[in-house]
Order: sequence, then structure tokens, then C-alpha cells
Amino acid sequence: MIKVGVVGGTGYTGVELLRLLARHPQVQLAAITSRGDAGTRVDAMFPSLRGWVDLAFVTPQQAHLEGCDLVFFATPNGIAMQQARELVDAGVRVIDLAADFRIRDVIEWQKWYGMEHAAPELVAEAVYGLPEVNRERIRGARVLANPGCYPTAVQLGFLPLVESGLVDLGNLVADAKSGVSGAGRKAEVHTLFAEAGDSFKAYGVPGHRHLPEIRQGLANVAGGAVGLTFVPHLVPMIRGIHATLYARLNKDVDLQALYEARYRDEPFVDVMPASSHPETRSVRASNVCRIAVHRPQGGEVAVVLSVIDNLVKGAAGQAVQNMNIMFGYDEKAGLDIVPVSP
Amino acid sequence: MIKVGVVGGTGYTGVELLRLLARHPQVQLAAITSRGDAGTRVDAMFPSLRGWVDLAFVTPQQAHLEGCDLVFFATPNGIAMQQARELVDAGVRVIDLAADFRIRDVIEWQKWYGMEHAAPELVAEAVYGLPEVNRERIRGARVLANPGCYPTAVQLGFLPLVESGLVDLGNLVADAKSGVSGAGRKAEVHTLFAEAGDSFKAYGVPGHRHLPEIRQGLANVAGGAVGLTFVPHLVPMIRGIHATLYARLNKDVDLQALYEARYRDEPFVDVMPASSHPETRSVRASNVCRIAVHRPQGGEVAVVLSVIDNLVKGAAGQAVQNMNIMFGYDEKAGLDIVPVSP
Amino acid sequence: MIKVGVVGGTGYTGVELLRLLARHPQVQLAAITSRGDAGTRVDAMFPSLRGWVDLAFVTPQQAHLEGCDLVFFATPNGIAMQQARELVDAGVRVIDLAADFRIRDVIEWQKWYGMEHAAPELVAEAVYGLPEVNRERIRGARVLANPGCYPTAVQLGFLPLVESGLVDLGNLVADAKSGVSGAGRKAEVHTLFAEAGDSFKAYGVPGHRHLPEIRQGLANVAGGAVGLTFVPHLVPMIRGIHATLYARLNKDVDLQALYEARYRDEPFVDVMPASSHPETRSVRASNVCRIAVHRPQGGEVAVVLSVIDNLVKGAAGQAVQNMNIMFGYDEKAGLDIVPVSP
Amino acid sequence: MIKVGVVGGTGYTGVELLRLLARHPQVQLAAITSRGDAGTRVDAMFPSLRGWVDLAFVTPQQAHLEGCDLVFFATPNGIAMQQARELVDAGVRVIDLAADFRIRDVIEWQKWYGMEHAAPELVAEAVYGLPEVNRERIRGARVLANPGCYPTAVQLGFLPLVESGLVDLGNLVADAKSGVSGAGRKAEVHTLFAEAGDSFKAYGVPGHRHLPEIRQGLANVAGGAVGLTFVPHLVPMIRGIHATLYARLNKDVDLQALYEARYRDEPFVDVMPASSHPETRSVRASNVCRIAVHRPQGGEVAVVLSVIDNLVKGAAGQAVQNMNIMFGYDEKAGLDIVPVSP
Repeated sequence: MIKVGVVGGTGYTGVELLRLLARHPQVQLAAITSRGDAGTRVDAMFPSLRGWVDLAFVTPQQAHLEGCDLVFFATPNGIAMQQARELVDAGVRVIDLAADFRIRDVIEWQKWYGMEHAAPELVAEAVYGLPEVNRERIRGARVLANPGCYPTAVQLGFLPLVESGLVDLGNLVADAKSGVSGAGRKAEVHTLFAEAGDSFKAYGVPGHRHLPEIRQGLANVAGGAVGLTFVPHLVPMIRGIHATLYARLNKDVDLQALYEARYRDEPFVDVMPASSHPETRSVRASNVCRIAVHRPQGGEVAVVLSVIDNLVKGAAGQAVQNMNIMFGYDEKAGLDIVPVSP
Repeated sequence: MIKVGVVGGTGYTGVELLRLLARHPQVQLAAITSRGDAGTRVDAMFPSLRGWVDLAFVTPQQAHLEGCDLVFFATPNGIAMQQARELVDAGVRVIDLAADFRIRDVIEWQKWYGMEHAAPELVAEAVYGLPEVNRERIRGARVLANPGCYPTAVQLGFLPLVESGLVDLGNLVADAKSGVSGAGRKAEVHTLFAEAGDSFKAYGVPGHRHLPEIRQGLANVAGGAVGLTFVPHLVPMIRGIHATLYARLNKDVDLQALYEARYRDEPFVDVMPASSHPETRSVRASNVCRIAVHRPQGGEVAVVLSVIDNLVKGAAGQAVQNMNIMFGYDEKAGLDIVPVSP
Repeated sequence: MIKVGVVGGTGYTGVELLRLLARHPQVQLAAITSRGDAGTRVDAMFPSLRGWVDLAFVTPQQAHLEGCDLVFFATPNGIAMQQARELVDAGVRVIDLAADFRIRDVIEWQKWYGMEHAAPELVAEAVYGLPEVNRERIRGARVLANPGCYPTAVQLGFLPLVESGLVDLGNLVADAKSGVSGAGRKAEVHTLFAEAGDSFKAYGVPGHRHLPEIRQGLANVAGGAVGLTFVPHLVPMIRGIHATLYARLNKDVDLQALYEARYRDEPFVDVMPASSHPETRSVRASNVCRIAVHRPQGGEVAVVLSVIDNLVKGAAGQAVQNMNIMFGYDEKAGLDIVPVSP
Repeated sequence: MIKVGVVGGTGYTGVELLRLLARHPQVQLAAITSRGDAGTRVDAMFPSLRGWVDLAFVTPQQAHLEGCDLVFFATPNGIAMQQARELVDAGVRVIDLAADFRIRDVIEWQKWYGMEHAAPELVAEAVYGLPEVNRERIRGARVLANPGCYPTAVQLGFLPLVESGLVDLGNLVADAKSGVSGAGRKAEVHTLFAEAGDSFKAYGVPGHRHLPEIRQGLANVAGGAVGLTFVPHLVPMIRGIHATLYARLNKDVDLQALYEARYRDEPFVDVMPASSHPETRSVRASNVCRIAVHRPQGGEVAVVLSVIDNLVKGAAGQAVQNMNIMFGYDEKAGLDIVPVSP
């Protein structure tokens, strides 16, 4: 049993983390902070947690986070980098669900995120928490950078192709689609129901912050730079990411066998039978990534379909998975959830 | 541990039942029948169940249901009444999620359901499975009639008022709204996405089959007939029922205290704080009914808001709750699910 | 041809007004004001208007509204009451799509709207713009109060019953449901897609600002106070209001004939055939109100179903209809739109 | 004024055609056929047309289509090819909204559509009705093949690049997304609200019938075969197609200028300002195709975003546009519709 704190519990990744931690057999939720909502009961803001979370939001000062074994940051970008140092020095392990520790090149990070980095030395030590690539290093992490939602879906989809050197690395395309919860629980016009509903659009085509994160991850396994075009889109649904990936094969290969072998032992990656088209709802509320591989008309182009729940495998669920690895628990503890469909 | 069979597992109540039973600690899923899809793996039809249900649909003949402790009927109306007799005689207990055993007056039932009843003697013995009213009788039931979705939301909302004789029983109004999954997983035009989406309508105003069921339930606790106007509506959402109930108070009363007292010990009825407006998503995927009570401008009209997930407390979840009661298990076993929100 | 100005064109009623005025044969759009967005092209904010509205937003100072024949206020409550005086004195007629001139009892208005009224004398002269009741007085109006969305749907639904004295006026129930655009184009959390999507809730049960407006309208035709319970709900759809109305008949009547006679000459009220259930999408983007009347099981309760597009007959379309009446145009000019379905 | 008949008016393209034709100043709707629904009033099936279409469905025999100037086929594939011959011989011009005359290679057509072609000689004479490519030939057409929805969005997006030889023609990617109305008004499980709602998926990755149509169109303007990967997806919205197109530039070019020049005189293609991201709702209910062009990070990949309303520019609207061209009317007649947004 570990004592866990959550910094910033009022957004969607925060409430999703609470949904998962509330049932985790080895977790004692010690404190949930929110400057703006301190004093408010958590279940008054999120009635879905009535009977499950018997806490009120507290200020960071009231939270005594240094007494926790682990602190999750479910905060906007730029917060964890300011507060993690002190916690780490106090022996508290940290999982950041935002982007502060994801990009190893601090200059690059600063360019995309538009602020100076407050803790470059923690970036150097942080472990990128994609268990399917980094499981061993995650075990010992003091600072864990939980991957972005798009980067999780896109990397898991491309990994077998890129690791094996089977595709033209200069010409990858990731056409990705996300439900609106990916934009967070912020009051903004463009994500209102009457704006985002019954409509579809691309956004960030000139450049999206998840592009450098995906490129870094693929380059690491490729052993060199990759050429990637990444276009995100907004789907009128609440949860879910669907990444459609295109790569040019440079030799003949049994894609189905390749993917099944790569993910055979992964508890949260499900390679679908040949000819499948995974739906985002098939993973709703669960930590699973489902992948299908195609080679239309037997040609040279591999098409990979990869779906996750952006709030679970794309955020809070992967964070819990990482926590389980870090503390030696069963990797599936607290994540034994049957997807909710329909 | 009991052996459980499911007849008709290809509709929404069927797949929802499988979602819940797959994680139930005392259930061994023995067989799932479907004439039309025998031979198909369950998880090929419902990929959300991959890794959770390792069975294929079988014909009723192959299922050996007589060897089960309990059989759920998740079939259209008119099936359970033909097959239950044989099972009951073999010592198998039966829970029917359809309407075959809900209405005690067989003539009335035949009028609303348009067919002759095949087993009136089982109607006489069947127990109506609303645990908040009938818990003791449910324990010993051999044939259990699982309530309809609207009747569950409406009865739980009206019960404290009707039991206490505080309202004009001749003039009750239930304006109820349901998500589209309530119409089932049948290929029909009116529930297509492009028909039911981004629109709202009433239906069945001249008369809906759940009306006699609700009237019967309320009359039982009122000790006499009630006058009820019931209007169902179709909401462009997948899951959820919201019942807005209107009744004229005939004496002064603290509604909040009345409801809290009535449901204090109920594990699946949550009386919200005063002035609340429960949202259907606050119970999504869970077995909870949340209720709020109002008295606008302190007047004589009580307005009760009652929400459930139509596929859980309104169908499969309540069926599992009834199973737990029938077999002496913890009433919450297999139903420890945090609602999925957003 | 008249010169028309629009104050506050950046909300949903504003853009809808522009959609309608852009095609109106007798309207020259002279100016559209927005303090916050002055200088921005209208079609940069609303690409749907590309090729239709060749204007930029201007400040009120730049707009020279005193040179217009008519000015629409598509502003939040409390703006028109401050600016109308000057325009009226300059001979400009005013249509306010907000609530400033709807309630004749200024004290009552101040209670519900939480501010002091800046122009009580204009309230006294203002005409309530429900053409089906007030057509003659609308012709000469200098200040027109365009009705609210709920009040339009509810009043049109109740009118024939209330005018004829056929129902118990002390016990009316209006259970109303609105699409999310009714909440306006404001950045707020509760109307985000991930909050309002795939869910349903009531709101404002203790008291909603449209209640006094509806009560005033019904009392006017009833010739005395009415007892009304009004409960609004939020539907996960963009446009549309569905009002389900309940009233107790105090004598026998052919409801279908009553309604058909009452609305025979109304260009924008469509009484559906007996046994109909109008869908909100059947009026999407059009100025029509469709009504169906029922008497379930031939009992004493009349159930009326009334649907409108909240942005058209519930706002901008009714404003254009009123403009047409005020300026002697064909009442249907600019409103010859076939509803968009699906 | 021409006399127009519609064969098969009960699907979405049919009702949309009626919406447009009802307001067309030069069209007299003579007959609408439906074998299954003969005798039913059109506005009983589609209440949105009440007051606009005063006809009942008739059988083909009752319709006397040979007396029409023009007949639209809004039928499933395989119908028009059986009936067009007789009409053409009678001097009636034909526009087929299905696929019977779209593919010039009859063998190829038979492979993709799984039936023998009944009128290959009409395929030879038929004109492919994409006005932006074929306007002159459309004028004289006796048999017009109205393009598919995906092919319209994809071809209009790729045309300027492919015509100008600026891209690697062997490696085009079209990742396309459609609203659910694209699947038609057929009772099927996979397009139910509870199946297609709040979810996203690809389909037809191994091969979709619109692939050969797009390849044919692009090859015609390229002057040789093109290598295209086409992946369609289902979006939980009613109307709209968004095509995201990827091509590798083989020389430097000002994409914005190229597109603006290409479409300068096209009434229904709107090239958005640089850096735009068109939303499908910006064309809802209108015949416009909006296009934006990007070159992420100034690299070698062109990304084109192309949106249409699948039922209008992707079906009925384009058919009316073609009719206007064929009969010498203003190309915009009957299509002067401001998009409905929100």
C-alpha cells in the first residue's frame, strides 16, 4: 500500500486518475490539490465519484505531499517542472501527466512549449513512460514523463515497422483523430458542444506539440531521424484516439505475424485479427491499445490502425500502469476494466 | 461459484450482462446462446470483450442450460415464457430481462404485448425484481422478472412520495427520456445515427408498454390505483435515462429528509444534496440510480429527477444485483464500478 | 429596401440573424458591431458566411446606427435597455433578441435578471413579438421584445387550450428540452462537448428566467394568473427545442380540430396530423413551429408536443418575421427555407 | 421550367434532392417513385417537407417518366443501368446519383460492384459530372454520372497538384472521413446511433468502391496512372466529408497561389486563406467545397484539407448543379443556400 497525492485534480486526466485510483488495491489516496477549488468536495465537482472519493480539494500547502510515496501531476504544462525538484529531494517519486519531461532536447522543448524550462537536470534523468519500450528503465524512475495521447497511439502503431527497418523512414504519415476530451476541461469556445458537435476538422497542421515527441520516440528505436507528417483532427466524440498510419514498405513482410510477435507479451496492446478495423469504443474506459495492420491490394503501403482511450492509455491509465511498474505491483492492478460498449 | 447461462447474448442487454459477469468473482460463464450466430466467437462480435470472454455462441441445444444454476434471458419478449418452465423444473433459477413475467395481470399483459402468454402459472409465481421494494421475496425467487428501464427510474423516483401518501395519486406525470440503446441492437431506420442524432422527439404518447408496469408497481405500494401520464422521449445519446416526475403535494413535507430516510440503506440509490440536478453521465456504466428532489418556488408541486444507466440499473446491472440477492452474495459483487465520466 | 444594423453579431443568435438577413430581398446589411472583435471580418469568424456577408465588425461608434431603419440587438441581457432610447429618438426601430423588454412588470424583471432596469418607459411601450398573438400591435412597434426560445415553444403549444378555457389553469406542466446552442457561444465548462455530450440533465428547476415570461404570456390570454411548473433540460444536440406540455382538461373537446382552427392562417405554425410525434430536426434551420396534440388513453390529460429551432423561431427567425410585419413585407420574406433533415 | 422526375426518393440523397428541387425556380416536380412506399405522401415520410412537396410516392408505372425532361435516379447501384435506356430513347435526360455510369472500364466496374453491367453502351456515352473538370461536356450530356461523395472531395482537393505535375503521382494518400448519412437510410446495425455514436473507425481499408473512381479521375488529368492509398473512416456526425490529402512535392511551388488560380472562377469551390482548417459544418446544407492547403514546416509534403457536405456537393447538390449546366440555367439556381452553422 502506498500513499499517493494528486496535484491538479480538476481536469479530465485528474478525474480519470481518481476513477482508476479509487479502486486500486494498493493505493491510499492521501491528497488532491487545487488552488482554485480548495475546500470543495471532490464529489461535489464530480458526482460520478460519490461514494468512491471521500476527500476535498486542498491547497498544495495543506497537502503535505512530501509525505507521499508518489505524486501525480495532472496539471497544465509548466507546473511539474517547478515543483518536482523538492518532492524528488524528499524521496517522493513523481509521475507527470503533462509534457514537462517528455522531450530530452530542452531547447526543442522550449521552442514548442513557449517557456523556459525550470528543471533541465530533471529532464536528463526523467524516464519516458511508454512501457512497451522502456519497461526496465521505468522500474527505477524517480521522475516519470507520462507520454502524450497522440504519441502513445502513433508510436505503438509504428513501433514494429520502425524497429525492424522495414519501411521508408523518411516518409511516414500519421493521420490522427481525437475525441474532444483531449482538449481538456477548460472553458473555451472552440470545444463547446455547439462548435465541436456534428462537425469535423483538422487542426495544428503547421505543427503540433506532439510532433517532436513522436519523432523523438521513433528516432530512438530507428537509430536515426525519421521524416514524419503528423496531422491531428477533432472528432465529435468524447473519448478516443484513432491513428491511421501510412508507411512505404521496403521489403516483403508478413505484417500480421510481425505485430503479433512484437506485442505477444504486452498486457495492454491487442493486435486484432487480420482485416480488422478497430473502433475507439472497443477500448472505451480501458487501458488497451488495439491495433490492426493492412496492406491494401497487396501493395507497398502499410496501413496501421491504432486506437486508444485518450484519457486512459493516453493519460491516466498509462500513468497507473507506470506506477504499477515503478512499485513492483502487478502491471494490471487497478486496470482490470472491461471496455464500456456501447 | 455458480454456473451461469445466458440465452440471447447478441443484444445490448446481453453484451452488457457479459461485461458485468466477466468480472464477477462468483460466476462461471457456462454458455451463451444465439441461434443466428452459433459458432461465432463472442469477442468477434463484441471486440470490447477480447480477453474477457473466451466463448463462442452456441445453439440452445448445445448449451446444456439445465446444468446451470442460473439462466439469464436477454431475449426479445415472448421467448423466456416458452423456455423457462423446463429450466425451472430442472432446478435452474431464471432471470428474465424481457417483459414476460413483469405484469401480474395476464390479460393486461396480452393486450400490451400482442401475444398469448405461454406460461401464466409462472407469472403467478414470478417475483418482480426491484430490490428496493421486493428484496426479501427476491431471495427465494425461482423466476425473477427483471424490471424495465423506464419503470426502474420512474418507480424509484416516485416511491417515497407514493408510499407515504403525500401526493395526489390521481395526477402523476412522468416525463421520461432515454438514450438510443434503449431501443436495442436491431436494424431499424428510426434508430440510425442519421435519424436519431442531433434531434429529439417524444414517442409512444398514446400508450407505451412500460405504462402498465409502472402503474402496477406504484399501485402496489399505494394500495390502490394511481393516475399516471407517462411520456417517453428519445435522446441523442447512447446510454442513460432521465425521468422528470411531477406530483401535487397534499401536505407539507421535508422532501429531502423523506428521500434520504427512504434510501439510507440502499446500496444503489443515491439521494443527491438539495438543489442538485443529476446528469445521466454521472451513473454511466454503473448500477446507481441518482435522485434529486425539488419544490419549485416552494409551491405545491414536487419535482423529482431520477437518472440511471438504462443498460445497467435499467437492465443487466439490476439483473446481476438480483442474482446476488438470490444466491446470497454481497449485493454489490461484480458491480463495484466507478461511473465513467466524462 | 431597408438599412439594417446588428449590435453584437458574434453569438449564435447573431450569426443566425446574419444567415437569414444575407438572403433577405429587402434588407441591406449596413453594419455589425462588436467591441471585442472590431476589425475582424465577419466571415473570418464565421466561415459559413464566406461569400454572403462582406463586412467587418465595427465598434458602435463606427456603425452610425442612427442612420439605419432598424437595429437588431443580439446582445446579452442588459445592453439594449441602455442603447435603445437614443436610437428610438433618432427614429430607428429596435428589435431586441435579449430579454430587456419582455417582462412588463419591471420589479419582477429586476428580480429575475439581477440588475436595475435602465429604461422602464421603453418597457411600457415595447410590444411582445409573438406574431401569433400580437400581430396587429407588432406592425406599429418602435421597440419590439423578441420572445425567448422556451417561451415561444411553450406558449404556442399551450395557447389554444388556455385561450379557450378548456383546462385547469392552476396545474400546467411544461417539461422543455433544449439543444446546447441555447446556452449561447460563451466559453463555459458546462457546455463543453465533453460535458454536455452523451448526457442529459435538467437545470434551473428552482426557477428559470423564462418562467415569468411564459406565465405573463399565458396569463394575458387566460385573463388571469396561471399555475405553471416549468422544467428545462439540456439535450446533447445543437439546435432544437421540444416542449412537452401537460394540462388537465375540464371538458370534452376535439383537440385536433381546436388546434387546426386556431393556427389555420398562421404561416409558421404547423399542426401535425393526429397521433404525430414531431422531431426537432423536422424544423431544423427553419422558422416553423410544429405541434401535435394527444390525449393518452382518451383520458383527461392533454399532452401537447411543440418543437421549434431555438435559433430560428426561438430567436433570429422570429425576429425577421417581426421585422417583416413591422415594415409591411411578406411575412415569409427571407424565411423560405426548407428544414435541413437529416 | 422543366418537368423533373425522381426515381427512388426515400433515401437520404432522395430527400435532399427534394429539399433542393422544392425551391428551384425552374423545376416542376412531376413524380417521385418508390415501389415500396407508393401511395404514401412524401411529407408523411419526411415531415421536413410539409408545405414544400405536395406529392405522394408513385410506382414507376404511374410516374410517366417518359414525359419528363429530366429524371434523377436516387436509387441503389444497379437500378439506373436497367431503366435509363428507355428514358434516353424517349428523349429524357438522365442523372444517376448512384455509381452505374461512373467507371468507364466496365470490367473494372463489375469487379468492384459485383454485378454484370446492363448497359455498357450508356457507360461509353455517359459524362462524369464533376463540373470543375467536365463542364463543357456536361452541357450536352444525355446520361450524366453524378460523382461519388468521397471522389468529389478527394478529386477537388488533389486536382491542382495532379494537373500541374507538381507531386509524386506514385505515392498519394487520401485519408477521408464521412458522416454517417453517407451510408444511406438503410436499416443496418453498424450505423445505429448506439453503434456509430461516440466512436470512430476506419472501414474498407482493403478496398473501397470509390477507389477506382478516384484513380480514374486523377489519372485522366494526370495523363497516366496514379498510385493512391485511400482510407475512409466513419465519423459520429450526420453530414460532412473531410478529406486529408498527402502528396510529396517534386518542386517548389506557391501552393496557395496555385489553388486560388485554379478555382478562381468556380462558383462552388472556395479556397480558404492560408493556414486555414475548414470545418465540415462550414458547408453544412450547402453545395460548397472548401479547401485549405498546407506545407507543414515548409517541408516537401503538401497537405490538403477538403470539406464538403456529402449529401449536397457530394450528391444531390452536385446533381442540381449538373442539371443547371445541362439545361442552360444559372449554375447556382436553387443552390443559393447559406450553410447552416452551428
